Amino acid sequence: MATHETNSAHEHTHDALQECIEECLNCHAVCTLSLQHCLATGGDHTEINLVGVLLDCAEMCQTSANFMLRGSPFHVITCGACAELCRACEEACRGMSGDEQLAHCADVCGSCADSCDRMAAMGDESGP
Amino acid sequence: MATHETNSAHEHTHDALQECIEECLNCHAVCTLSLQHCLATGGDHTEINLVGVLLDCAEMCQTSANFMLRGSPFHVITCGACAELCRACEEACRGMSGDEQLAHCADVCGSCADSCDRMAAMGDESGP
Amino acid sequence: MATHETNSAHEHTHDALQECIEECLNCHAVCTLSLQHCLATGGDHTEINLVGVLLDCAEMCQTSANFMLRGSPFHVITCGACAELCRACEEACRGMSGDEQLAHCADVCGSCADSCDRMAAMGDESGP
Amino acid sequence: MATHETNSAHEHTHDALQECIEECLNCHAVCTLSLQHCLATGGDHTEINLVGVLLDCAEMCQTSANFMLRGSPFHVITCGACAELCRACEEACRGMSGDEQLAHCADVCGSCADSCDRMAAMGDESGP
Repeated sequence: MATHETNSAHEHTHDALQECIEECLNCHAVCTLSLQHCLATGGDHTEINLVGVLLDCAEMCQTSANFMLRGSPFHVITCGACAELCRACEEACRGMSGDEQLAHCADVCGSCADSCDRMAAMGDESGP
Repeated sequence: MATHETNSAHEHTHDALQECIEECLNCHAVCTLSLQHCLATGGDHTEINLVGVLLDCAEMCQTSANFMLRGSPFHVITCGACAELCRACEEACRGMSGDEQLAHCADVCGSCADSCDRMAAMGDESGP
Repeated sequence: MATHETNSAHEHTHDALQECIEECLNCHAVCTLSLQHCLATGGDHTEINLVGVLLDCAEMCQTSANFMLRGSPFHVITCGACAELCRACEEACRGMSGDEQLAHCADVCGSCADSCDRMAAMGDESGP
Repeated sequence: MATHETNSAHEHTHDALQECIEECLNCHAVCTLSLQHCLATGGDHTEINLVGVLLDCAEMCQTSANFMLRGSPFHVITCGACAELCRACEEACRGMSGDEQLAHCADVCGSCADSCDRMAAMGDESGP
């Protein structure tokens, strides 16, 4: 029935939203810990392109999570931007081969990008 | 000469960036003051769609300004998102006719949206 | 032995830090969800003293968590400020009797205040 | 007359608040620009104690400005914490002698610390 389908769709959306909030909060925390790791390690770990994108990704994840926590209908916009930042950060972290913390950070960023992409795609279907 | 043109182009971009930073910082401040005004006024000024979009616009302007202040190549992504939020906030503020603070806020949001749109368009030409 | 004691002390500090990060991140999220709840409920739930302190507490918790995630020696300062905001928010939420979300928020704020107080007290002993 | 004096006192407080908001917003911007400068310069400019305190000071100034823009009675708490962070950042910047950007940053931090100290002291007199 239409009602049942609507309810299922709503629950699905709610679960996806909850998951995406957790992904963004986790990605924000892991990027900030990775920033500390890079500054403490020194050398090419403090290269501006790496430190810069860790700061960018952490801040955009925080903003994206805040929009979803506030229940903002505009979270599809911030999730779309967040997915792009997470992909860029994932790539920069993968570029530093042999670093466990950054390899973990890349995985978390990739997973968060997937989740944000799904939220942004839902927005394209239904409008903000 | 090519060098001269390149310098002019660079200065133009630098001026546009500086202007956009100021627009975003100003829009963040005006939206936050408007939020205080709405909560102090009460009644339909505390309607979730209005208070919510003021919070959203203020936060996205702050994030967008921070990306530009850090010199992040990804500011084109955040400026694109910021332009959309500013348009939404402008519209919500215009909807409360007869309120001077919100009329001013709408003007500031509209101007910031224009500036952010220009920055986002520059990014589309040159890549992040 | 001194070494063993130092290690134990360090582990204890590390555990307390980890716990405090989680308390602050959780308190930030719950205050932001409570804000959404208050704006959606309307009426005296949108009173400026309640909405304002929810915004204040959420932002200070976010800042405090970020200092600890970055490993900043100045987290004792932000934890001290955060504890005061959490106590104020706890009190404001308890003032709205009969609201389950705000009762939960008050509990979370109280627990976060205790954790932040412990971190701030550690700082007083050892210096930043 | 009492009324006149009260009005003068209120105007004085309002001016001091306005000035402190501008100091905090400016200090946030200058610290973030200095961060970009340090990461671009490399070498001992990327030392964790310097980069870390620039991030700390920028974030606390942003939070402090937001509290005042929202008209929060708890801005005395955040101004107190902000003054301490500004002093620490001023000292770290002064430690890098011969760097014009950091010498400017130190001046801005010192001025912001003075302004925040005055706001925090007002709070001690009147209560939050």
